[in-house]
Amino acid sequence: MIFSSSLLENAVNEFARLPGIGKKTALRLVLHLLKQDETEVERFSEAIATMRREIRFCKKCHNISDRELCNTCSNSMRKQQIICVVESIRDVIAIESTQQFNGVYHVLGGIISPLDGIGPEQLNIDSLVKRVTEEKTEEIIFALNPNIQGDTTVYYIGRKLQGLPVRITTIARGIAFGGELEYADEMTLAKSISNRIPVEQYISSVQ
Amino acid sequence: MIFSSSLLENAVNEFARLPGIGKKTALRLVLHLLKQDETEVERFSEAIATMRREIRFCKKCHNISDRELCNTCSNSMRKQQIICVVESIRDVIAIESTQQFNGVYHVLGGIISPLDGIGPEQLNIDSLVKRVTEEKTEEIIFALNPNIQGDTTVYYIGRKLQGLPVRITTIARGIAFGGELEYADEMTLAKSISNRIPVEQYISSVQ
Repeated sequence: MIFSSSLLENAVNEFARLPGIGKKTALRLVLHLLKQDETEVERFSEAIATMRREIRFCKKCHNISDRELCNTCSNSMRKQQIICVVESIRDVIAIESTQQFNGVYHVLGGIISPLDGIGPEQLNIDSLVKRVTEEKTEEIIFALNPNIQGDTTVYYIGRKLQGLPVRITTIARGIAFGGELEYADEMTLAKSISNRIPVEQYISSVQ
Repeated sequence: MIFSSSLLENAVNEFARLPGIGKKTALRLVLHLLKQDETEVERFSEAIATMRREIRFCKKCHNISDRELCNTCSNSMRKQQIICVVESIRDVIAIESTQQFNGVYHVLGGIISPLDGIGPEQLNIDSLVKRVTEEKTEEIIFALNPNIQGDTTVYYIGRKLQGLPVRITTIARGIAFGGELEYADEMTLAKSISNRIPVEQYISSVQ
């Protein structure tokens, strides 16, 4: 693409760096912004820069947060003794959208996947074990994607928590094996939370 | 979607305003930016704000420009006597990318389309006629999308230019009827410029 303006070219190139955005889509987005009021574009640009600059990760659950502790961890109305363990922030958003879960979260920041070179030490597992020990957690609900990596992670953390007086469950397999948690519809996801089963029962049903 | 952070929510909502970007895609893009260095995100945000704030439209051809006159109109190496008339800035970029055209442009800013309420008075047609009269233009090449609206616009402007000593041509119909100029491959577009035909011949071939 050859541009008549370097300002335009810059903006298009910046958009085209985003995942799944090609040059033509980038151009379409930039020309759309060009038609908007200057204040609206200012707001767009500011929202992104501010988000990156000021966002933090909750020191307890590693979820995205505006403060040191996220809205969920600092909310006394939520059952702090029930921790839902998820792979990523997106999964928190997906579960929150079902409005069926009243506990708190723990974001692992990934999943054990030796093929991708991701081992347990790169994930927020130690802080989870510490949390369960210190806070007298009653229940851990695993809400990981139902695939080999998810099962491995459940198994690994399950072993780490052995001996602690905590009930360990996993969301029901309402989601098809190999599916992605993030794209599940809210009904299925809500059902899989309310129908959660003890992890021993889950593992034996897989084998 | 329920967010744990209003900063995140703002950024996602701003992205989701863009055409063709839904909430889930917006979230994916924002989480991608969140993983980038702060300086990179600053650069992204700045490129967009600066573009909107500082970009101008060439006072001669109405193309996007960094200055009062665009790179093409102020370039003495380009044939200022050959004007390629296009619907939008995207078409200029598409034609420039073929590197086959050495004249200048005139961006109409749309196309005559009574059904969409777009009449000739909303387009940059008067400035084109003025330009042709004052600059002793030798040739006008219409490079409009080959559909009813494009044909109407060619016909309307052709009438306006009647009597002026200018050759009026249109790019060859290398592009299928109903197709979009913007998405044509560069070879087809390049060929359709070099095989341009006089507008009288074009109109009679359509009828």
